[in-house]
Amino acid sequence: MYEGAIQDLIDALGRLPGIGPKSAQRIAFHILQSDSEIAANLVEAVRTVKERVKFCTQCGNVSEETECRICRDPRRDGTKICVVEESKDVIAIERTREFRGKYHVLGGAISPIDGIGPDQLRIRELMQRLADSTITEIILATDPNLEGEATATYLARLIKPMGINVSRLASGLPVGGDLEYADEVTLGRAFEGRTNL
Amino acid sequence: MYEGAIQDLIDALGRLPGIGPKSAQRIAFHILQSDSEIAANLVEAVRTVKERVKFCTQCGNVSEETECRICRDPRRDGTKICVVEESKDVIAIERTREFRGKYHVLGGAISPIDGIGPDQLRIRELMQRLADSTITEIILATDPNLEGEATATYLARLIKPMGINVSRLASGLPVGGDLEYADEVTLGRAFEGRTNL
Repeated sequence: MYEGAIQDLIDALGRLPGIGPKSAQRIAFHILQSDSEIAANLVEAVRTVKERVKFCTQCGNVSEETECRICRDPRRDGTKICVVEESKDVIAIERTREFRGKYHVLGGAISPIDGIGPDQLRIRELMQRLADSTITEIILATDPNLEGEATATYLARLIKPMGINVSRLASGLPVGGDLEYADEVTLGRAFEGRTNL
Repeated sequence: MYEGAIQDLIDALGRLPGIGPKSAQRIAFHILQSDSEIAANLVEAVRTVKERVKFCTQCGNVSEETECRICRDPRRDGTKICVVEESKDVIAIERTREFRGKYHVLGGAISPIDGIGPDQLRIRELMQRLADSTITEIILATDPNLEGEATATYLARLIKPMGINVSRLASGLPVGGDLEYADEVTLGRAFEGRTNL
């Protein structure tokens, strides 16, 4: 244990996700020993995020305005909504340049074990957006795991009866991967979803 | 890429040691989404460290006072100095409860490739402490790697002619380890340093 302030910083850093005691110590000493500028930048960045970054009132994505960049963009196709768990997923999909519609960020996935049911997610807000009949297609891009699949199934059941086209991202072998290292569930999905050539 | 503030925070976090782009993103969203208290704690801890934590004028260890807790402690044996590279090493040795003398923190090890020579380390300060004839034993506890060994050899050559007892921490098999997994250098050292039973 260190004296006072340095231990407090190690503790504060150690509470962040993915930072263990050794990394927290290493980062604390780095902050202590490097220019004041590095510490000042970090302090400023944390404060600005807490002050300025909000969530888009439309889609729930992070944004510094009432509506996010994508929701404000008139060139985006307003008839398609891609539903994701987190803002990070929006960035990942944007990088593919495959999708030019809009998004809806749920803020997580249904997970009874963590006490997260449909009411804890932004599903009511999604339903309100769907009430507007301009939306004709929903792409469910929740994670390909238990919680993500459950959430997709739940949403599909809710949305399909509204006459809206609902699809799910394909599961299969990762591109550049090695067939022999694929787990059996992924390989099974790849068979199921095989496409004709 | 995110908009403004959140990307700035990801960048600031990504500049810390051991935090890659994915962890930086994860931590930034954690800070954004959790209570303001977590962000406030972190901001406060970083600022306090930069404001309050200094280095002990005697030994170079981190301290909030002019002299650190160990240098101020009259029960510590002032005739022995254990020389280490970093403040973290002081904590590691204190945990063993084997040593009741004082410390000297060099602030690194001699590493020509990184442009660190004896002048960049707190070696002059160590020599000044040794001018006081109360010190009779120096234990060199630099890291058991190339730079640490070079530093220990350099210091031994400097200090031995002063008639001070100079020793180096033993190298050998780690306790609880497995002989067959020890690297050949470590195993060689364990042979060299074998003790009679």
